Amino acid sequence: METTPLNPARRRLLAGSAGALTVAGLATSGVARASEQAGSKAAAAPAASAAKPLPAYAAWKDPDSVIVHSANTIETRRGAFGDGVITPARELYVRNNLPPPDASILDDRDAWAVEIQGVKQPRTLTLGELKTLGVETMATVLQCSGNGRGFFPHQPSGTKWQVGAAGCVMWTGIPVRTLVEYLGGLEGDPAYMTGTGGEKLPDGLDPKTLMVERSVPRDTMQDAMLAWEMNNEPLSLAHGGPLRLIVPGYTGVNNVKYIKRLAFTTEQSPVKIQQTSYRLAPLDAKPGPEHPSAWAMTPKSWVTAPGADGEPVKAGRQLVRGVAFCGIHAVKRVDVSLDGGKTWKQATLVGPDLGKYAWRQFALAVELPAGEHVLASRVEDTEGNVQVEERVENVRGYLNASWRDHALKITVS
Amino acid sequence: METTPLNPARRRLLAGSAGALTVAGLATSGVARASEQAGSKAAAAPAASAAKPLPAYAAWKDPDSVIVHSANTIETRRGAFGDGVITPARELYVRNNLPPPDASILDDRDAWAVEIQGVKQPRTLTLGELKTLGVETMATVLQCSGNGRGFFPHQPSGTKWQVGAAGCVMWTGIPVRTLVEYLGGLEGDPAYMTGTGGEKLPDGLDPKTLMVERSVPRDTMQDAMLAWEMNNEPLSLAHGGPLRLIVPGYTGVNNVKYIKRLAFTTEQSPVKIQQTSYRLAPLDAKPGPEHPSAWAMTPKSWVTAPGADGEPVKAGRQLVRGVAFCGIHAVKRVDVSLDGGKTWKQATLVGPDLGKYAWRQFALAVELPAGEHVLASRVEDTEGNVQVEERVENVRGYLNASWRDHALKITVS
Repeated sequence: METTPLNPARRRLLAGSAGALTVAGLATSGVARASEQAGSKAAAAPAASAAKPLPAYAAWKDPDSVIVHSANTIETRRGAFGDGVITPARELYVRNNLPPPDASILDDRDAWAVEIQGVKQPRTLTLGELKTLGVETMATVLQCSGNGRGFFPHQPSGTKWQVGAAGCVMWTGIPVRTLVEYLGGLEGDPAYMTGTGGEKLPDGLDPKTLMVERSVPRDTMQDAMLAWEMNNEPLSLAHGGPLRLIVPGYTGVNNVKYIKRLAFTTEQSPVKIQQTSYRLAPLDAKPGPEHPSAWAMTPKSWVTAPGADGEPVKAGRQLVRGVAFCGIHAVKRVDVSLDGGKTWKQATLVGPDLGKYAWRQFALAVELPAGEHVLASRVEDTEGNVQVEERVENVRGYLNASWRDHALKITVS
Repeated sequence: METTPLNPARRRLLAGSAGALTVAGLATSGVARASEQAGSKAAAAPAASAAKPLPAYAAWKDPDSVIVHSANTIETRRGAFGDGVITPARELYVRNNLPPPDASILDDRDAWAVEIQGVKQPRTLTLGELKTLGVETMATVLQCSGNGRGFFPHQPSGTKWQVGAAGCVMWTGIPVRTLVEYLGGLEGDPAYMTGTGGEKLPDGLDPKTLMVERSVPRDTMQDAMLAWEMNNEPLSLAHGGPLRLIVPGYTGVNNVKYIKRLAFTTEQSPVKIQQTSYRLAPLDAKPGPEHPSAWAMTPKSWVTAPGADGEPVKAGRQLVRGVAFCGIHAVKRVDVSLDGGKTWKQATLVGPDLGKYAWRQFALAVELPAGEHVLASRVEDTEGNVQVEERVENVRGYLNASWRDHALKITVS
């Protein structure tokens, strides 16, 4: 759905925002980009980022904290993550594959219906009924599959996200396993859990080319959730309210918004967004079902301070801070480099541990002399997997976790 | 400071809000109040609560989630807590002892200065400097000393809070112990940590009768913090920004806003707010230093759903939910009663454990037949302390933790 024709203005808007790309991140051609960085500071400043207006359904976002790429793609500024672990709703990125449904679907939240299939007692339940069956709260990293696409040198189509199509948020809802148990357990031995979004599809077009329906491995149901609250407030339209499937550790697209059907299936969904979109295909290939799907996230971290948005950094003692997560495993340690990866020092993990699907904040006290510095971070998970140095090249620019791409160049004076 | 003359309109406003008191809580005279409950539903409904406008410095609060008692006292509705663990800023209560300083103090947050005394190397540090020395994030329950005052039958002076002068929020800042260490350690053996607020005092009045300066036992410094972020956003003026002292497990007033001085002292502050206000004196006594100060909070819980704001509750399966905390100790278990305390069942603790100073959510699946039910909850901490059945009577109405007072009467149909 990255190239959906529904938003014809997107390419133009993206072109307009390209100047901001090098502010927050240091691309592989670091030296060449250094000169652009100083010149494009203004593009990342609050006033300029607010120049592109927030769409109506997300008008409540904080214009100073986000970069509006288009009506359906809004990114958090690198310097706006803060040092608390939970990303406030008004700063969280937005990425919709289709325009959101009409806001009237929130008029009676409890009346929202979701069909459950592939269980022994399949049926349709309302949100009001779900709320009586069970409740859980968990924190997960929500990250667009294309976050970091802006660092791919081959300029893939799609939004050129830097670091900000990600956040760590708290979900409240019913665990899928509780719901499945309530409906008698799984029917047979399905390989996938398939969620279908409730977006309204344009008339006259083949639904299979447009509808948002994603399949993930069946066992993700153990920790998955149907969520009606985000950060302790009823789930907003922008983030999939009244009801959203949360598949912790999996990229954003798998966390189906406005969910109207949850099915346990033997095959993956036949629709385009499953079969050919969100596939990690080589640069010279046409993406298809033979390529890996954008599913579980891999170890990734980035520095968020100091100087993330080009603000001046004083020489002397500084705390280098950032965020780190490892998809479906827990963070074990984070190392920080001040010299672009030549030498590393172990950082301290800061703040409460909200479980393996949440991100951890890290901090390292350093002495920064005047001059240019390239701040990098590298996370390792509890299974021994280490954040990759180089991105895994793929034609659509998914799942960029390269610590080199995500390094931050700052000037200290 | 409960009777400060600075807000002459307060008594009138409180009188106007009295009708809402019995909506959320069941006072000891439960039968007598039952008839009021049905009639006063409308008073708690969003439209009516918004009738009293939010003050300018808190205009960003969600009018549907709060009850505005006065410009300096704003309460969260019992039904607005949600089932996630962190209270969003826009729903969090506000209680200011004095009007907040001019918003211009936020123009250059990093320039805010705090004087540290009672350490080996006393000096004044700016917030910008503090940010380079250390960072930590923790969740604490913030609760006004007078929360639950509305349930005291003797009608103490001061805001008649029900359950909503409390929330669980995430703070980011520098641990006080880190700062003390940086300044060479404590000088001598001070008994108290004393924080002074930066509110502007009216001319011509004795500062000692008005200024916000609170002393707490010295050892609270081990977990205390000077915080500049709340819920991952720069601390708002309404909640004490740019810098606030957080004393976890202690009532709100001890968490001094706009902190401009932090001193380790041999004596408690001589000002009125320390010496005679916020003292738990018997009903027939004039409060003074001989009475216990409103310091550490005690085990407390309340039910937040279903039916907390008088909304209809359907007969059948329901999840009774609520929040529970124990001041300076961790929650061990919560029990729930559907019959006003005659019988109890253990509830499940829900969601992530954010540490002993945070609250825990709890839930219990029940079958509720049609009729009236009195939903009560009772928490026990890891030290074996159990939430009290009856309030500890005191003239100013502080620290009400009575599970009986906080029981919720609902009508199921």
